[in-house]
Amino acid sequence: MRVLLPDLPEFRALSEVGERSVPGCELAYYSGDHVPEGDADGVVLWFASGETRDHLLALPGLKWVLTLTAGIDHVRNRLPGGVQLYNANRLHERAVAVHALAGMLSAARGFHRYRDAQGRHEWASPASIRESRLISLDRARVVLWGFGRIGRNLEDLLRPFDVFIEGITSGTTDTERDEALASADFIVLILPSTQDTRGIVNREMIDRMKRGAWLVNVGRGNLIVRDDLIAALHSGQLAGAVLDVTDPEPLPQDDPLWAEENVIITPHIASTTTDLVYRGASLTRDFLIDFQQGHEPEGLVESWRKY
Amino acid sequence: MRVLLPDLPEFRALSEVGERSVPGCELAYYSGDHVPEGDADGVVLWFASGETRDHLLALPGLKWVLTLTAGIDHVRNRLPGGVQLYNANRLHERAVAVHALAGMLSAARGFHRYRDAQGRHEWASPASIRESRLISLDRARVVLWGFGRIGRNLEDLLRPFDVFIEGITSGTTDTERDEALASADFIVLILPSTQDTRGIVNREMIDRMKRGAWLVNVGRGNLIVRDDLIAALHSGQLAGAVLDVTDPEPLPQDDPLWAEENVIITPHIASTTTDLVYRGASLTRDFLIDFQQGHEPEGLVESWRKY
Repeated sequence: MRVLLPDLPEFRALSEVGERSVPGCELAYYSGDHVPEGDADGVVLWFASGETRDHLLALPGLKWVLTLTAGIDHVRNRLPGGVQLYNANRLHERAVAVHALAGMLSAARGFHRYRDAQGRHEWASPASIRESRLISLDRARVVLWGFGRIGRNLEDLLRPFDVFIEGITSGTTDTERDEALASADFIVLILPSTQDTRGIVNREMIDRMKRGAWLVNVGRGNLIVRDDLIAALHSGQLAGAVLDVTDPEPLPQDDPLWAEENVIITPHIASTTTDLVYRGASLTRDFLIDFQQGHEPEGLVESWRKY
Repeated sequence: MRVLLPDLPEFRALSEVGERSVPGCELAYYSGDHVPEGDADGVVLWFASGETRDHLLALPGLKWVLTLTAGIDHVRNRLPGGVQLYNANRLHERAVAVHALAGMLSAARGFHRYRDAQGRHEWASPASIRESRLISLDRARVVLWGFGRIGRNLEDLLRPFDVFIEGITSGTTDTERDEALASADFIVLILPSTQDTRGIVNREMIDRMKRGAWLVNVGRGNLIVRDDLIAALHSGQLAGAVLDVTDPEPLPQDDPLWAEENVIITPHIASTTTDLVYRGASLTRDFLIDFQQGHEPEGLVESWRKY
């Protein structure tokens, strides 16, 4: 089996003799400058430009692609017929859940406002406790919109908090969904981008939410209609938003979201940790060993699924 | 029993006929402008200026003081002989633990740096994952320096994380303490301010810590020698600090801490939540009912204790 991997030290280590090696696999490495010639049974896709990706997907003999991302919108519609697609939710789900909790707690404890005050060298004691807007998550209601593996990880992290959690899945009726949204203090978007979810958080949907709720988006930027979000922040319908994803990305310098006091923006780094490449290489190694041993590796994206 | 309470609506409600009332207690109310005449068996001390506090502590007949704070340094040495002091750790321990976790996660996920970038309208994608300095707390070692009720609450909140927690108490030997500090990724200061703890985090102590650790202070500002902290940030010995308390407070506008990128300052609001006054009144009610029924209320500060 010949497999192309990203040219990073952690992946190079899989070729070396030693405990990290994968016996019986021919490994070759691609970079932005160079894609090896010849057939490939499989490609592990990560940190590739659009051009490199298209080059890799056109390699002769290709049977499978493992994208080390959770989302698959960059590859799904470009896949040649008969090529199986695997993704790597489990590489990201934990870190994304931690990031979502970090965003919720940062918002609840006002860290964004105090950081702004710090820039002015200002000890911004709240004028009164009532006006502090500081909460502790206790007795909060949290809706996890998109309740897959990230959602279950976040549910675990929230367990010691005295919160009430509801998950919205594809099996949730619109009525149930609207009831959940109407009482939620925090709505965490963990949805993928599909035809059905694009723009789902629009004015009409936001109006069904509890006044003063916080929105947290760790799914995809285009779930939210930006101008409707901004209008809801200005009217007080939403208290704020934690956005790790935007539409487009990078968010242009003149986008009005930047200047919103209660919008907390991180540059799509929810799943980034300093050991991410190492973890990606470890997942790849497990994946290849499963293949070699005739087991079906984790992460198969079934073609009938929307995501 | 005549008791003086702060003049706030939540405490006024304790006088009214209804489910919040405390039967058999004569309640009177003080404010910055007015302290009622006459004897008082007890005083509930909260949001009082130094002047009002001194006036209250001099009231004839005083037998006990309940301070609705966790710290007691503002009252301990001013207490007339024979007056019993109670504090209200349990009012604050949970919120402080939540705030400490929020600070740790904010730091780990770089929210402070991304907030600065947001002010510049800048999508600050890390140049490389390795340089992102983003972590998820997993496999981190956390030292809780001062392991009382706040520490146990924080331990609970950290339980779903894959972290290793060590508590330092007054029973920990210096050798054990230094070993714990030498391996900790996060050191959370939950110590009170006493003769023994003032300036305890000085250059010598910081040098014993693991290079690149984060310091989180939810105890008292004067635990840390500020200039030694700043030197350690500049040398890279410490990665950063989350400070909810400083010395002095408010932190003066020209203090160099404000300008440190990896110092995250909040204005002593760890225990503040919008429902804090309500919770304080509820605790007071429980306290008074215990007294009326002849039970020893929670929170007695024993005079031989250092804090």
